[in-house]
Amino acid sequence: MGNYDELFARIKIITRDVEGVIFELVPEKDPKTLYDAARHYPLAGGKRVRPFVVLRAAEAVGGNPEEALYPAASVEFIHNYSLVHDDIMDMDELRRGRPTVHRLWGVNMAILAGDLLFSKAFEAIAKASVSPEKKARILDVLVRTSNMLCEGQALDIEFEKREEVTVEEYLRMISGKTGALFQGSAEIGAIVGTDNEEYIQALSKWGMNVGMAFQIWDDVLDLIADEEKLGKPVGSDIRKGKKTLIVSHFFSKASKKDKAEFLKVFGKYAGDAKGDALIHDEKVKEEVAKAIELLRKYGSIDYAAQYAKNLVKEANEALKVLPESEARKDLELLAEFLVEREF
Amino acid sequence: MGNYDELFARIKIITRDVEGVIFELVPEKDPKTLYDAARHYPLAGGKRVRPFVVLRAAEAVGGNPEEALYPAASVEFIHNYSLVHDDIMDMDELRRGRPTVHRLWGVNMAILAGDLLFSKAFEAIAKASVSPEKKARILDVLVRTSNMLCEGQALDIEFEKREEVTVEEYLRMISGKTGALFQGSAEIGAIVGTDNEEYIQALSKWGMNVGMAFQIWDDVLDLIADEEKLGKPVGSDIRKGKKTLIVSHFFSKASKKDKAEFLKVFGKYAGDAKGDALIHDEKVKEEVAKAIELLRKYGSIDYAAQYAKNLVKEANEALKVLPESEARKDLELLAEFLVEREF
Repeated sequence: MGNYDELFARIKIITRDVEGVIFELVPEKDPKTLYDAARHYPLAGGKRVRPFVVLRAAEAVGGNPEEALYPAASVEFIHNYSLVHDDIMDMDELRRGRPTVHRLWGVNMAILAGDLLFSKAFEAIAKASVSPEKKARILDVLVRTSNMLCEGQALDIEFEKREEVTVEEYLRMISGKTGALFQGSAEIGAIVGTDNEEYIQALSKWGMNVGMAFQIWDDVLDLIADEEKLGKPVGSDIRKGKKTLIVSHFFSKASKKDKAEFLKVFGKYAGDAKGDALIHDEKVKEEVAKAIELLRKYGSIDYAAQYAKNLVKEANEALKVLPESEARKDLELLAEFLVEREF
Repeated sequence: MGNYDELFARIKIITRDVEGVIFELVPEKDPKTLYDAARHYPLAGGKRVRPFVVLRAAEAVGGNPEEALYPAASVEFIHNYSLVHDDIMDMDELRRGRPTVHRLWGVNMAILAGDLLFSKAFEAIAKASVSPEKKARILDVLVRTSNMLCEGQALDIEFEKREEVTVEEYLRMISGKTGALFQGSAEIGAIVGTDNEEYIQALSKWGMNVGMAFQIWDDVLDLIADEEKLGKPVGSDIRKGKKTLIVSHFFSKASKKDKAEFLKVFGKYAGDAKGDALIHDEKVKEEVAKAIELLRKYGSIDYAAQYAKNLVKEANEALKVLPESEARKDLELLAEFLVEREF
C-alpha cells in the first residue's frame, strides 16, 4: 500500500490550510465550554478526506483550489457536527481514541456543540470567496446534503427496530448517511471550479458512489478483517444486530432454517456495551463464526464486497469526462483505497 | 387590550402563507418518524411573531412582503429547532400544551428532528426569491443569528452552575438567547425590502432591543403576574434558582444579610420537577413570598420592568427613521405588547 501512504501524506499537506479556516471559525473563545466542546473532534484530527475531495474536485475541473478552502472547511464541519450528535445517539464512549464530546461535557453541551458546528458549516459557505451566484448554488447543495444526512440517520434508527431490511432500503439509508456528504463534497468542489454541468454531474455521481462504497466496505471489513489491524473484534456488527448490505442480501436468499439459525446470534448481545463486552468469551466467538459461515454460504460477504468495488469502478469511470490531471488521479486513488483498505 | 386582539388577528392572517412554506418544506413524508417529529411544534401553532416581524419589516422599508415569505419561514424554523433542542436540555415535558418532541419520539429522534429543522431554515433561504447578492447577505445574518443562539444557550447552561451572575453577563446571555433571533428577523426582512443601510440598521437595533425586552418581561411576569392568567405558579423561577435580571440586580445591591436570606429559598426546589411540584405547599408559598419581598425592597423587580420598557422605547425610537406606515405601526404595537402583556 505504498501508493496510499503517499496519498495520505499528500492529503495532510493539501488540507493544512483548511485546518486554519476551521480553527479561525471555531477559535478558543467564550463561552469557553461551548467552544472547547466544538473544537474537541477537529482537534483530535481525523483524515480530512472530505475537505481533500472538495479541494481536488475544484482542481480536477480546472479551478483554483484556494477558492475552495472555506467550502472544504464547511463539509468538515458538517462531518464533525454529525459525529457529535451521532455519538450521543449511539451512546459511544470513544472517538478517534479520545472520550466523546458528550462524555466529557455532558449531553446538553454536546447537543449544543453539534448545533454550533452545524451553524459553522453555513458560516464557512457565507465566507467563501466565490461569486454570489456560486454561493447560492453551493448553499443549495449543502442544504440537500444536510437534509439527506438527517434522513439517512433517521432510517438507520428506524431499522434498529425492524427484523429485516431489504437491499433497496439499505442502499437508500447509506445514500443519505454516508453517500450524501461525499457527493456534496465533490459537487461543491466542482461548482467552485467550473460552470461545466457535465463535470459537476460527473463529480456528484463519483461522490455518491464513493461514499456508499466506503460504508459497504466498512461493513465487509467488520467480518473479514484482521482483528489487530481493525482494532475491534471481528463480527461485532453481528453481535449488535447491525443491518448491513451483507445481512440484507442473506435475508433475501437464505432458507427458512438458515435464517432461523442466523437470528439466534444476530443482535443477541446488542445490550452488552454494544456487543463488545463478551469478546473474550469462547462460546460467543464460536457463535459468531457460525453466523459468518452462514453469510458465506449464500455468498453475501462477496456480494457486498463486489458491490462496493463496482460502485468505485463506476465512480472512476464517471471521472473520465474530465481532462487527465494529478487532481483527478488523486480522486481515483482515494476511491480505490476506500475499497481496498484493511482497516 | 382591544388593540392587541386586532394585532394578533392581523398576525394570523398575514403569516398564513408562511405556514404554507413551512409545510411545503417539512411535508408528511418518509422517513415518517423524522418528519412527524419535525412537524410536531409547527403543527401545534405558536404565535408566528418572528415571521410576522420579517414580513412587516420588509414592508416597513418599502419592500414587497411576498419576497420575504421564505425568509420568514426560515426564522420560524430556527425558532422551532431551538425549542426542540432546548426542551431536551431542560427535560421539559410540555410545550404549547402538548407533550414535547423528545417525550413522544425519544431523545435521539428529537435531536435529529431539531437538526432537520435547522437545515430547513437554510433551505428556506436557499429557496428565497431574492437576488443572489441579497441571499448571500441574508445568509450572513442567519449564520450570525444561529451562532449567537448557541452562545446564549451555552451561557444559560453555564449560569446554572454559578452562584451569581452580573447584570452585564445576564444581558449578554439574553442578547444571544432571545435578542439575536428577533434582531435577525427584523434585519432579514429589511434586507429583503431595501438597500438603505440606515433602515436596515434601525430594524436590526429594534429587533435586538425587542427580543431582550421580551425575555426580561417574561422574568418580571413570573413574579408579578396573576397565576390564573400566567398559567403557572408565581415565583417558579425563584424556586428553580433561575438567574434573571431581577436577581442580578438584587445581588449587586443587597446587604450580606438579605442576600443570605434570599439564598435560603433561591433554587431550593430546583430538583423537584423544576420546582413546581410543591406549589400547593403553604410553607413554600410563604418562603417564596418572603423572597419576592426582598427583591422588592431593593427595587429589583421595578428595575427590570423599567429596563424592558426602556428597551422597547429605544426600539420604537429607532424606527422613526422609517417613513410612517401601517407596517411600522404594527411593529411598534407588537413591541409595546411584549412589555405590557400580563401572560
